[in-house]
Amino acid sequence: MEDKSNIYKLMTIITEAAVENEVLNDLVKLGAKGYTSVDARGLGHHGVRSAAWGMSANVRIEVMDTEENVRKMAAAMKERYYRNYAMLIFLHDVEVVPHDDLDGVWD
Amino acid sequence: MEDKSNIYKLMTIITEAAVENEVLNDLVKLGAKGYTSVDARGLGHHGVRSAAWGMSANVRIEVMDTEENVRKMAAAMKERYYRNYAMLIFLHDVEVVPHDDLDGVWD
Amino acid sequence: MEDKSNIYKLMTIITEAAVENEVLNDLVKLGAKGYTSVDARGLGHHGVRSAAWGMSANVRIEVMDTEENVRKMAAAMKERYYRNYAMLIFLHDVEVVPHDDLDGVWD
Repeated sequence: MEDKSNIYKLMTIITEAAVENEVLNDLVKLGAKGYTSVDARGLGHHGVRSAAWGMSANVRIEVMDTEENVRKMAAAMKERYYRNYAMLIFLHDVEVVPHDDLDGVWD
Repeated sequence: MEDKSNIYKLMTIITEAAVENEVLNDLVKLGAKGYTSVDARGLGHHGVRSAAWGMSANVRIEVMDTEENVRKMAAAMKERYYRNYAMLIFLHDVEVVPHDDLDGVWD
Repeated sequence: MEDKSNIYKLMTIITEAAVENEVLNDLVKLGAKGYTSVDARGLGHHGVRSAAWGMSANVRIEVMDTEENVRKMAAAMKERYYRNYAMLIFLHDVEVVPHDDLDGVWD
């Protein structure tokens, strides 16, 4: 039933609301063709440096792309934000319901 | 550890906030036994027709059901909304912590 | 590409907003090292006892941990909340982008 050609990687980034705009701009520069961002509350490890904990205003950002592109974006996010900001990134596969077979109608 | 009988398909629909009520009503008519909807901000492809892009008020809707039911709902959503609305649908498996073995107590 | 040592279990709990604080406190007592909580609207089965249905103020809580820890937390949540509150718990695997290899710099 599952069409392998429609399997993409979903990247979820949970981070501080304060850096939402910066992160979203970076994602677009890194090639993201879209994203979804949701306000969240969170408790977690506030970066490697501070090692502080606390409830805070977070955002939960999702980006979907090919595995190769997602891994590049994840590596860039890690390098830019992991040291100094609370950020958690996780990946999993999703099957996308494609738009492709509709394209012909409007071309 | 994983009980295959508890594996269901989770459908995530990301779409324009303007059609949230219509989509939720359709899902219930299509047999959804529940749903979860969350406000979101998004950037993405605004439908095949308009080909416009931009940040917009979105919703992130989740429905969980058997694979068969989810595929029927996804096909109906695609047919009704993909051409004229910004909508992205993706699917993945989840293992549900069941209520079943509690039922006897209240019967 | 996927590093098995970075595979964790993500637990998603969808429940009534009224018990959010109680659930989050329980999760921390049960060993959760972090969580993310998002406001949601939902329609679903309101507990085994009431069998009532309706749209309501929900929260969508995520916790990530080892499979063993997540299963312990899920069992405790089920025992404490499933009978008397609308609660749905589902699990799936995610690959985490690790912080580990950054640690050395700040030690």
